[in-house]
Amino acid sequence: MKKIIVQKFGGTSVADIEKIKNVARTVIKEKDNGNDVVVVVSAMGHTTDHLVKMAKEINPNPSAREMDMLLSTGECVSIALLTMAIQAAGYKAVSFNAIQIGILTENIHSKARIIDIKTDKLRKNLDNGNIIVVAGFQGVTEDGEITTLGRGGSDTSAVALAAALNAQRCDIYTDVEGVYTTDPRIVPKASRLDVISYEEMLELAHAGANVLHPRSVETAKQYAVPLRVRSSFNIDNEGTLILGVEKMEINKPVAGVASDLSQVRVVVCDIPDTPGEAATLFGSLADENISVDMIIQSYARKAYNTNDIAFTINKEDLPRTMSILDSIKTKLSAGDVKVDDDIAKISIIGAGMIDRPGIASTMFETLAKNNINIRMISTSEIKISCLINKEDAQKALKALHSVFNLEAEESADVKGTLPDED
Amino acid sequence: MKKIIVQKFGGTSVADIEKIKNVARTVIKEKDNGNDVVVVVSAMGHTTDHLVKMAKEINPNPSAREMDMLLSTGECVSIALLTMAIQAAGYKAVSFNAIQIGILTENIHSKARIIDIKTDKLRKNLDNGNIIVVAGFQGVTEDGEITTLGRGGSDTSAVALAAALNAQRCDIYTDVEGVYTTDPRIVPKASRLDVISYEEMLELAHAGANVLHPRSVETAKQYAVPLRVRSSFNIDNEGTLILGVEKMEINKPVAGVASDLSQVRVVVCDIPDTPGEAATLFGSLADENISVDMIIQSYARKAYNTNDIAFTINKEDLPRTMSILDSIKTKLSAGDVKVDDDIAKISIIGAGMIDRPGIASTMFETLAKNNINIRMISTSEIKISCLINKEDAQKALKALHSVFNLEAEESADVKGTLPDED
Repeated sequence: MKKIIVQKFGGTSVADIEKIKNVARTVIKEKDNGNDVVVVVSAMGHTTDHLVKMAKEINPNPSAREMDMLLSTGECVSIALLTMAIQAAGYKAVSFNAIQIGILTENIHSKARIIDIKTDKLRKNLDNGNIIVVAGFQGVTEDGEITTLGRGGSDTSAVALAAALNAQRCDIYTDVEGVYTTDPRIVPKASRLDVISYEEMLELAHAGANVLHPRSVETAKQYAVPLRVRSSFNIDNEGTLILGVEKMEINKPVAGVASDLSQVRVVVCDIPDTPGEAATLFGSLADENISVDMIIQSYARKAYNTNDIAFTINKEDLPRTMSILDSIKTKLSAGDVKVDDDIAKISIIGAGMIDRPGIASTMFETLAKNNINIRMISTSEIKISCLINKEDAQKALKALHSVFNLEAEESADVKGTLPDED
Repeated sequence: MKKIIVQKFGGTSVADIEKIKNVARTVIKEKDNGNDVVVVVSAMGHTTDHLVKMAKEINPNPSAREMDMLLSTGECVSIALLTMAIQAAGYKAVSFNAIQIGILTENIHSKARIIDIKTDKLRKNLDNGNIIVVAGFQGVTEDGEITTLGRGGSDTSAVALAAALNAQRCDIYTDVEGVYTTDPRIVPKASRLDVISYEEMLELAHAGANVLHPRSVETAKQYAVPLRVRSSFNIDNEGTLILGVEKMEINKPVAGVASDLSQVRVVVCDIPDTPGEAATLFGSLADENISVDMIIQSYARKAYNTNDIAFTINKEDLPRTMSILDSIKTKLSAGDVKVDDDIAKISIIGAGMIDRPGIASTMFETLAKNNINIRMISTSEIKISCLINKEDAQKALKALHSVFNLEAEESADVKGTLPDED
């Protein structure tokens, strides 16, 4: 049996006719290597923005179901055009949307998770010599409802397909050269990583590195799919390979530094110090699929027997969070709710920090030396994150990138570093 | 059980945000009348043209399968936006594409015929109080391949849905006020018909009146679905009702006059006068789904024992026809093939002509008086068509419209008479 390579091209890679033809050449090159190829594509360039704009003009609060119906059309345009481009070069190719394949998801609109992918149609068409072009970002429920996978969904589609097909590798083609030690737009001496572990990549992604959506990395990790992030426009550069940590040789304690400006801090004041209050609060948020990142519960003020609970969430979840808090405030007998969006989360990530003491203290010292106040801290085995004031984010990133010896010899040649749209 | 009304809105009726909101108001008005409403929409304005242009830039001969994948996205955008507009007015609505409903077609790309429509999902959603918005023009094969229905396909989708749901009526909203006695762009005194029979409408459509595609009228006739053609922009005008001829009172022998400039005449010369030659010729064309309209076989030239066969086809089928003729020429031992595209077909249509002799001779005399040469003639029970030179088409149309007393008191107020795209 031939090896299967899954390739994913984001919206900027298929933004116009010439770029689609370029993608076709990249796809064909892999086919000519003797591999079976499955290609996942996003909507062309700013298609999604255009569709969202029309929707908002018609209905300021469009239903999530109809938004999914609307947005899923963008990928169907891309797959048809890319398939035509591949056929124009004399190769057999066929396009499929998510309904046709059976990319089964949960019944949640606008950010569904993939449950299962049927492979019979894919295998049959590969066996017939076809290059298969699949619409990313979309799925279908058991009842035939069209869903979308949320931000970075096409990456997840590609990885899930690679897992389902037991593919040799999943190549994520994008408009950057790979995964960097930090954002090259802020730190020009950021260096490209040749290899990184799923675990580190996950923490990097959660910490605000926009190259890959965390969900796609989680899926790759779960099914041990080797993932390569590489440039659509410079295919001779092999980019960054993402693997299981057990397959890597780790030299540096810290692999990367990231900042995340997308969070807001919410403080619920004066929650009575009785058991179950935190569970009520976070349970209600979880019921609505709102992810909470950092949490700090202040020491109870013994005089009043109350706690303050501070947590961070993604900015776009704030309106829903506030309405949930409003509805449970009475039940919690809580006081004021304060919101602070003038914050940044800065993180250092490295599988090597497990065995090396002193990394955390180096981080805190470096921030202190630069007069940067730490407002919250969270840690995992391979990550340390500090919440700081937004105005200090760039300064912190540069200082940490330097102190952990991540600088490249030369400045990175950054062509474009905006994340692909889906 | 509530009555079901199916409404269809073409591309010009949903060309922009304001027009979509206008359509939503028309839909809601019918719902407020106490009816269940199923709406079929085409792609917005020039969406299809735009998609076709991109496809041709990528591949001058795009595969029909991928064109169907590409073009079917246009209707999915429309249904999502219209559903959002209806919801914005506080009404329950839900959109479905052809795969979701199960609008089953033959496995022929770009001009499939509908075989069956599943109604369980539709009925369930109507029973839940939803207005249902369905993507026109598209279908799905049993194998899950996406098909499109060809020109006028959305009309056919609407009529087929009305038949499947046993609807009270199917209203085709378009940019004209109804069906006219002839093209008001050419004959300003064309009058709008209040009622016309399926049979007459079919002949009118085949004769080049662009208001409705023949296939939709055939389907309406087959299932006795009352059809109303009316204006999207003037919904107080009830337009033209199309019914079975048995339900009509017929006053005039001729209901309408039409010209068709879309045909070409092909002459295959010197076909040996042996049995089966015509069958080989037209069988080969039929195998490729090429419709032949008029046919004339000249008297055999006894000296050579050969015939000339002349026939007319649609212009867009000419390249395929020529390649078929090329492949069977040797088998037929035929001579030259001549093509003449400088022709027009002019037709008079009327269910009333069955019982009234002299209609044909009036037609031929009128053309003769105007110095118009007749090159071929074909007739049906309710239609007489003459092939004439293209330059005479307008003159013929005006003369026939006048001689059969079809003129309105006043000139028609023609807002737009281009057919809707699908």
